[in-house]
Amino acid sequence: MSRVSCPILSSRITTAEHAAALIGPGDNVGISGFTGAGYPKAVPAALAARMRAAHERGEDFRIGLWSGASTAPDADGVLAEAHGIATRLPYNSDPLLRSEINAGEVDYIDAHLSHSAQQMWFGFYGRLDVAVVEVAAILPDGRLVPSSSVGNNKTWLDQAERVILEVNSWQPRALEGFHDLYYGTALPPHRRPIPLTEPMQRIGEPYLRVDPARVVAVVETDAPDRNSPFAEPDDTSEAIAAHLLDFLRHEVAAGRMPPTLLPLQSGVGNTANAVLAGLGASEFTGLTAYTEVLQDAMLDLLDSGTLAAASATSFGLSDAGVRRFTEGIERYRGRILLRSEEISNHPEVVRRLGVIAMNGMIEADVYGNVNSTHVMGSAIMNGIGGSGDFARNAYLNFFLSPSTAKGGAISTIVPMVSHVDHTEHDVHVIVTEQGLADLRGLSPRRRAARVVASCAHPGFRDALADYLERAARERPTARHTPHLLQEALAWHQRYLETGRM
Amino acid sequence: MSRVSCPILSSRITTAEHAAALIGPGDNVGISGFTGAGYPKAVPAALAARMRAAHERGEDFRIGLWSGASTAPDADGVLAEAHGIATRLPYNSDPLLRSEINAGEVDYIDAHLSHSAQQMWFGFYGRLDVAVVEVAAILPDGRLVPSSSVGNNKTWLDQAERVILEVNSWQPRALEGFHDLYYGTALPPHRRPIPLTEPMQRIGEPYLRVDPARVVAVVETDAPDRNSPFAEPDDTSEAIAAHLLDFLRHEVAAGRMPPTLLPLQSGVGNTANAVLAGLGASEFTGLTAYTEVLQDAMLDLLDSGTLAAASATSFGLSDAGVRRFTEGIERYRGRILLRSEEISNHPEVVRRLGVIAMNGMIEADVYGNVNSTHVMGSAIMNGIGGSGDFARNAYLNFFLSPSTAKGGAISTIVPMVSHVDHTEHDVHVIVTEQGLADLRGLSPRRRAARVVASCAHPGFRDALADYLERAARERPTARHTPHLLQEALAWHQRYLETGRM
Repeated sequence: MSRVSCPILSSRITTAEHAAALIGPGDNVGISGFTGAGYPKAVPAALAARMRAAHERGEDFRIGLWSGASTAPDADGVLAEAHGIATRLPYNSDPLLRSEINAGEVDYIDAHLSHSAQQMWFGFYGRLDVAVVEVAAILPDGRLVPSSSVGNNKTWLDQAERVILEVNSWQPRALEGFHDLYYGTALPPHRRPIPLTEPMQRIGEPYLRVDPARVVAVVETDAPDRNSPFAEPDDTSEAIAAHLLDFLRHEVAAGRMPPTLLPLQSGVGNTANAVLAGLGASEFTGLTAYTEVLQDAMLDLLDSGTLAAASATSFGLSDAGVRRFTEGIERYRGRILLRSEEISNHPEVVRRLGVIAMNGMIEADVYGNVNSTHVMGSAIMNGIGGSGDFARNAYLNFFLSPSTAKGGAISTIVPMVSHVDHTEHDVHVIVTEQGLADLRGLSPRRRAARVVASCAHPGFRDALADYLERAARERPTARHTPHLLQEALAWHQRYLETGRM
Repeated sequence: MSRVSCPILSSRITTAEHAAALIGPGDNVGISGFTGAGYPKAVPAALAARMRAAHERGEDFRIGLWSGASTAPDADGVLAEAHGIATRLPYNSDPLLRSEINAGEVDYIDAHLSHSAQQMWFGFYGRLDVAVVEVAAILPDGRLVPSSSVGNNKTWLDQAERVILEVNSWQPRALEGFHDLYYGTALPPHRRPIPLTEPMQRIGEPYLRVDPARVVAVVETDAPDRNSPFAEPDDTSEAIAAHLLDFLRHEVAAGRMPPTLLPLQSGVGNTANAVLAGLGASEFTGLTAYTEVLQDAMLDLLDSGTLAAASATSFGLSDAGVRRFTEGIERYRGRILLRSEEISNHPEVVRRLGVIAMNGMIEADVYGNVNSTHVMGSAIMNGIGGSGDFARNAYLNFFLSPSTAKGGAISTIVPMVSHVDHTEHDVHVIVTEQGLADLRGLSPRRRAARVVASCAHPGFRDALADYLERAARERPTARHTPHLLQEALAWHQRYLETGRM
């Protein structure tokens, strides 16, 4: 039975190929999708075929590709393979597209996720020509049941000149009611307070709206989200989790947080998964999450009661996680809410709720500056995503990483980070498997002592301490943040030259 | 006639020396003061005398000094001269204290001003022993008429174990009614939306509250605020202002802002003053300000009608400006409102209002990272202040600087900044006297081309372009943000070694 119940929109049902033909060279295209969930499954491949054909004819055919966050090989991947992406925002984790960005072929605008919708609306990115948005169903009155992610869909549907909908019958029809779409945002000077004061408060409606007059095509699909499972926790990630949990216990004991903590935000990845697993095995219970992504480990916590409820903007489940969610979906109803990323990541809401932010990093320097995006200063890895939205406005933030990478060749604790995404003014706690450095209320020099002693790998600790000691000695009138500028990035340069820091 | 009308508090009137005797070694002391306005005039000097006496006896006597922002020689200066400051937060611009920080003698915690009150309240800085707060008068019921700045006074008065009040009869008694103190803040999970939706909306009351039981001393003073006048605009700052004004006109013409713009925030300094003077000479009228500091140039704009009204947390006037304000005070009533810095700088409010943020900088790199705090990577200048609060959450932000410093020896546009306070993800527009670079919606490489072409001084432009060209060539798989790590900070190192970049 068709998921398209609206007569007007039923009349627009067509093939992916016909839909893709409505997208032209130079168009800016806003697609759905966040962490491999809810992205369009059919139109990108059809569009990629058009691009390849155009390129074979010697014609240019590239687009500006905007999304919620990362998508999957069927979206970013096929378009990158066709060399059809000229600009990309606000986030990417596709390996092929990454290599094109780092080759200088694609312009990538790596933006705070909480900024992406409003900056589009402000006109900073130019006009939006086409939206391609996956939904789970279309109701008789034309309202849309959102899919497994919300991301920037509300903004794309509102702002695009032409709209293409993919209605994916693989998505559970019972997703209806799992979303909260807030339509109260506005441009300055007409903005009003976002009324959200608790993670699970509904401030909107369960549906996305679209003007049927702008819907130029509806494509029916039946295709799975493509998420990769995370690795099982290993000794390193378990050690990181243990340090973090001890610290949370300490903060509760000191009266700085209630026993149910404050709403948790967790990045995505193996370390974050280990932290969530650690929480599941702990005495903590009745917690809440106000986060971007609901991954398998969050389902575990919801199942065990460690987590009472979770607000996010997207699922990010493995195939097994999807089965678990789908089969037990009624168990999660009312305990999971997906919102627009402008709300899930909103500085106003994150600060109000007092979120505890836990995010991975590429490297930190001794003074507490964090690099979340760049390898050796120049090559982009993924992007800043929501880490800045959460870290800046959090009650408490953690940045997590093993103390070494590449089998010990790289120290993730360095004299100076090769790129700064979170400044010394913003970073509260750094955690590696070696230990935890609480940087709150410390001057740069005291932070440095703590980071070296607690977080650095023993194999790099002496070299870091030596750097700090010489920097303070050689520049006696510049001891607020001692640095030797000719050496500050030498560790990275040495890695580039020798394969070892 | 005494400004102290409350019988209970009248009974606590004493000398500065007796009041200072209530402050002991190791105490954390929260003082009033912001941009040289409203700081305590008598107790710091008396405290400094106690410190010197203790030091002469061979005893340690240093305190943790917390404030709104910068103070003046009579506060930071005398305490620094007595070597009586162990830690300082959240901002300093006193030259003597700066040199002690840079000598490694004082621990300086350089914090976002919007974070300072809440982090104190969270317990990140330890307990607050004593508050020393200047007020303009004490009402019969014990409520306090705030002085020429508000800063963190509400928090210090709320949280300190002991309170010392300085009642300064030099301050206009008619300041009563110029303040709006919001008492609705709370700790998570009890926070509610800040109800402010327009710059001049009153959401609180005109008075500071204090528990009389905790007031251990009241000191009467009659001493002026000490502010320095800014330099008159010169060709360079006028050129910066002209570029910025042209850009604002362009944005209005493009329909991205109303003709009355959006609320203005302006940093303090000669360049900012020139921008404000440029606005005054322009066709713009009926503007509003939502800012930290109300300087002379803002009085000009209020007088001319360019500015309808201004919300701030502090005055920052020259002696002439003080006279003008005091003599014409009734003219400004209802058009100037001073708030706590947690509200003037609140991310929630700044984003909601869509503030246009204009701040100076020390240097920017070609990719749009901005250094607001450190000289050659290590020596602190002043601090980040509110620039991050405003820049991150602004509708539009500008960072302003002449393209060179030290008579041309330093390029303020560099390959890589030596310290990052505002990341590439946060910076919209960079302006020097050479021109303006609009970085919105651009990838790092495109930003670099624009910054070099528009902002760099011609004497450094070729070297910057050469750096970028070689970086892209030598690291062909790392072209998202091309850098040569062995050279990235070489300009700064060369300056340290030769006095020229």
